[in-house]
Amino acid sequence: MNQKIARFFEEAKPVTPCLVVDLNVIAENYAAMRGALPDSDIFYAVKANPSPEVLRLLANLGSNFDVASPGEIDEALKAGARPARISYGNTIKKQADIAYAYQKGVRLYAFDSEAELKKLAAAAPGSRVFCRILTDNEGAEWPLSKKFGCMPDMARDLLMMAPKLGLVPYGISFHVGSQQTDPDQWDRALEAAAGIFRDLREKGIELDMVNLGGGFPTRYLKDIPAMSIYGGKIIDAIRQRFGNRIPRTIIEPGRGMVGNAGVIQSEVVLISKKSANDNKRWVYLDIGKFGGLAETMNEAIKYPITSERGGEEGPVIIAGPTCDSEDVLYEHAAYQLPLDLEIGDKVSIHAAGAYTLTYASVAFNGFAPLKAYYI
Amino acid sequence: MNQKIARFFEEAKPVTPCLVVDLNVIAENYAAMRGALPDSDIFYAVKANPSPEVLRLLANLGSNFDVASPGEIDEALKAGARPARISYGNTIKKQADIAYAYQKGVRLYAFDSEAELKKLAAAAPGSRVFCRILTDNEGAEWPLSKKFGCMPDMARDLLMMAPKLGLVPYGISFHVGSQQTDPDQWDRALEAAAGIFRDLREKGIELDMVNLGGGFPTRYLKDIPAMSIYGGKIIDAIRQRFGNRIPRTIIEPGRGMVGNAGVIQSEVVLISKKSANDNKRWVYLDIGKFGGLAETMNEAIKYPITSERGGEEGPVIIAGPTCDSEDVLYEHAAYQLPLDLEIGDKVSIHAAGAYTLTYASVAFNGFAPLKAYYI
Repeated sequence: MNQKIARFFEEAKPVTPCLVVDLNVIAENYAAMRGALPDSDIFYAVKANPSPEVLRLLANLGSNFDVASPGEIDEALKAGARPARISYGNTIKKQADIAYAYQKGVRLYAFDSEAELKKLAAAAPGSRVFCRILTDNEGAEWPLSKKFGCMPDMARDLLMMAPKLGLVPYGISFHVGSQQTDPDQWDRALEAAAGIFRDLREKGIELDMVNLGGGFPTRYLKDIPAMSIYGGKIIDAIRQRFGNRIPRTIIEPGRGMVGNAGVIQSEVVLISKKSANDNKRWVYLDIGKFGGLAETMNEAIKYPITSERGGEEGPVIIAGPTCDSEDVLYEHAAYQLPLDLEIGDKVSIHAAGAYTLTYASVAFNGFAPLKAYYI
Repeated sequence: MNQKIARFFEEAKPVTPCLVVDLNVIAENYAAMRGALPDSDIFYAVKANPSPEVLRLLANLGSNFDVASPGEIDEALKAGARPARISYGNTIKKQADIAYAYQKGVRLYAFDSEAELKKLAAAAPGSRVFCRILTDNEGAEWPLSKKFGCMPDMARDLLMMAPKLGLVPYGISFHVGSQQTDPDQWDRALEAAAGIFRDLREKGIELDMVNLGGGFPTRYLKDIPAMSIYGGKIIDAIRQRFGNRIPRTIIEPGRGMVGNAGVIQSEVVLISKKSANDNKRWVYLDIGKFGGLAETMNEAIKYPITSERGGEEGPVIIAGPTCDSEDVLYEHAAYQLPLDLEIGDKVSIHAAGAYTLTYASVAFNGFAPLKAYYI
């Protein structure tokens, strides 16, 4: 934990559970991404953390915004983003929501199906549209299902259909999987994208843009490659796949932009064993799967969890405070906490800046949603 | 769907997604439970649906309340429940929360560990306490982990410790697993409870109460036994295990009380295929795993989903509207929807009265929490 966040906890003594986000870290991440991929435009994935403080900071730094809903469009505009800097990246949109975005000035839209393309033609005429293609997500810790994207053949057909519908066929997007720890994963998707560019060029359609998606990781328990490594590998792959006709590229970092900027402080509510000779302690925290830590689902994201006590550690099962038996954070992952940990102690849940705040349930079991502080 | 709910949708045309709850159905469920287990006291599990309308109805019918947090205590009291009718059933409580409950007049508490018992001694002196024991949960569709409960040996030791700490050792609780479709599952847990009663009687401690927990199912895709079957089997098991010394028994129905009283109406946002020869349609709804349908996690709870179109059906994958790839409701379960289903159609998600409203996230992807109507 950085000094600034540590000092905040020490001085403000906020009620737990709470998330504290250091905006400087986000600014540093933004700079690192700019440096690693200087020719790519950054579209921050608002869903990772849509707080006004985060959006205002990024808008001031010159970021663009990838949004998922009218609610996120409103937040981005309120933070000072111009509509031209917004991409409506959700491939699943109600036609009324597209019309809302269009009325607000948004002119860049994702799609992955004929039906969605037709909705865009009806509600956002003349807009730039990009088609998301399916990729396989080796190496991702939060791998994507087939929910988004279509096969490249279909993408080609749909992009060819776009001009007839009064839309501008603008490009291709893909996503290599969230928390992607293998920087080589972009290459295969870029190969597919370049193939579509070539095929369409032969048909007289010139695409402009490749949306490289998100996937840039944040450091949880394991080390991750530096952003500069991702940048180098991706730039090499773009050059190799596109040769002398380099398209505009954009990235949609969410987790990689805000993940390591946040720390959740939580209180130990109970430490217990199930029988006298149980060899693991159960440690129950005042935050769980339904209070903001939804990404612990199936123990996918493994947040580092630390206590200030420095002594010897022993194995624990870590669970949340609700009466839901599914609200167990880590049972199979081999978490350890100090043997002298006590009820009432605070623990820190690190790298919790992304996908926590808005995942919290409205009132499950009568517990209030996660509070947050921006410093 | 019952006529009353159908008429509401037809006349009020509420914005989707929304939950509509028929309070009459809850009253009928309450009567069925009273009839099936006339000698047991009902403690409604507030977490299943903590809406004021539901709590007021049940308070008026004479129900008691099982609560998980100070927030739920407040809701129950506001609905008219007297403190003597409240059981603080969460085994994981901050000492400050116990003190809050005690100050509000709550005198019945669950525990399953020595540390929790000591918190109760400190913050709720003189209260009745019951110890939750571990059971295995065969037959449950939402089986419980080992998060709650301790081994019977430990329960016995802790209940013997209670009087020395100034607490009243009141009884035993267990939970046979949520959506428990096998009414015989209570017997084994009752056998363990009766054993503890006997052992403690030999030590001079007379326990009074067995908390039979929840687990009573609601009908999703598959038929379930009638409440009267559960009642008969449970009464037989109590008689067999406790003979002539029948303890006070309480039940904590949540799902079984409100599940079948609610229907969620959702709009079809998109229907698509991933390639020209894809044999399954993807149907995207405006509600998903993070909008209230959290219990579709790992496809555990299978809600019946219907459309008003009556034609031939074909296989579908059903997903939510967010940009989260985990927001897929049913991919492996073989759901079918009409072949002529169209974007913009409404679908009904049945038996959605329990564990939906409060599971909704505050604003994930910028989508508002689920709205509800009580009729």
